Amino acid sequence: MIKEIFEHRSIRKYKSDEIDDKVLNSILQAAIRGSNTGSMQVYSIIVTRNPEIKNKLWEQHFKQPMVQQAPVVLTFCADFNRFNKWCEQRNAEPGYDNFLSFFTASVDAVIAAQNAALEAEASGLGICYLGTTNYTADKIIEILELPKGVVPVTTLVLGYPDESPELTPRLPERAVIHYEKYKDFSKEDIDNIYKNTENSELTKKLIEENKTENLAQIFTQKRYTKQNNIHFSEVLLDVLKKQGFPVN
Amino acid sequence: MIKEIFEHRSIRKYKSDEIDDKVLNSILQAAIRGSNTGSMQVYSIIVTRNPEIKNKLWEQHFKQPMVQQAPVVLTFCADFNRFNKWCEQRNAEPGYDNFLSFFTASVDAVIAAQNAALEAEASGLGICYLGTTNYTADKIIEILELPKGVVPVTTLVLGYPDESPELTPRLPERAVIHYEKYKDFSKEDIDNIYKNTENSELTKKLIEENKTENLAQIFTQKRYTKQNNIHFSEVLLDVLKKQGFPVN
Repeated sequence: MIKEIFEHRSIRKYKSDEIDDKVLNSILQAAIRGSNTGSMQVYSIIVTRNPEIKNKLWEQHFKQPMVQQAPVVLTFCADFNRFNKWCEQRNAEPGYDNFLSFFTASVDAVIAAQNAALEAEASGLGICYLGTTNYTADKIIEILELPKGVVPVTTLVLGYPDESPELTPRLPERAVIHYEKYKDFSKEDIDNIYKNTENSELTKKLIEENKTENLAQIFTQKRYTKQNNIHFSEVLLDVLKKQGFPVN
Repeated sequence: MIKEIFEHRSIRKYKSDEIDDKVLNSILQAAIRGSNTGSMQVYSIIVTRNPEIKNKLWEQHFKQPMVQQAPVVLTFCADFNRFNKWCEQRNAEPGYDNFLSFFTASVDAVIAAQNAALEAEASGLGICYLGTTNYTADKIIEILELPKGVVPVTTLVLGYPDESPELTPRLPERAVIHYEKYKDFSKEDIDNIYKNTENSELTKKLIEENKTENLAQIFTQKRYTKQNNIHFSEVLLDVLKKQGFPVN
């Protein structure tokens, strides 16, 4: 049993302590050992420690304080730039300017990220994924000077934890695991699956703060709204086009 | 240091030994403990053990023998079906029928998959990712009866290894790690990065077998051709549309 997996908490408050080069290198090596499509390694990892650059990333990650606090930010990218250059230098015509290639490279980038996350936790560090990477990919590309062929997919902040949160609850297993075929959910199934979450003290507090009827409305009206999702989808699809992975 | 990360090899030959329920459950629990966007858990895992269903999946995974040999196949899906149903039952209008939502859910699905892969390896099992999941997503959806809102993202085969391959080589670190800003590659950089791979005995053997001028041409002309990438991109984009995540 890998205890880091079962003890994982996202950490959102960090001490100012630096991360030793040796520790960071071991985390990056862990990332590189991940499975990858056809041994092409069509991903890259941008290491940010410079406070000025980190500050620019912080702005793009919705100014979440943890991005300023954490001493290291790792941006994991789908990357066909290097591979395309190699092909071109070898009289081989690269055919990777398409959605499939982008998506394949993205899967590899996330596998690398999760290896890095777990290895960081094994070194006593805390981590948090930043989903905002997909919202402001256009700006992150400018800050990190990512060339054509490179798209940021996800980001990890790394640092020594300055909080020790409880394990976050998960839905019951039947909500996410299906045996042999997908078993779709009845109205009663949905009520049962979400019952514990909806009845928790945390949920009651959130509903009061957000002034919504229920928890689901916090997601749809506050956290992940249709309007924002449509806007950020357009940004992301535009990024794909500009970086050489057009979808139409 | 998490030794499973550094000792990972993809396994392509499996013994017929079954996987104990307890072991499988621990792997699924590991998957569920992964980081996920906003605690929404917008992914699902389909467990295939039934030989008939596994055989159908094997056909879609380009008839790779390991899919028949391995006793368990796990298909990791981006899944907004359950979440959308919950929102609709709670008078909350879900706004997740777009590319951003699909991509977010895909990242979560891959994090879950990599946790499962490492936990499987910690239990003495071997694993292999199947990139073919993205090529034949339309057919996998039919076989596993995935409803609207659900798209297969990646697949793991699990079983007891019947081979013990060497660690696969990786490009030098400077090929994938960039400090502070992306450092693009000169012609000489590319030559240097690929030198060891190109000069290996394995590469020489592959070039002879494939009758190409060099290794890069094996990728562009045989393994990942432009024609196939374009075709499978169309399949995948069509799947997104049909499953409720239209990109245009």
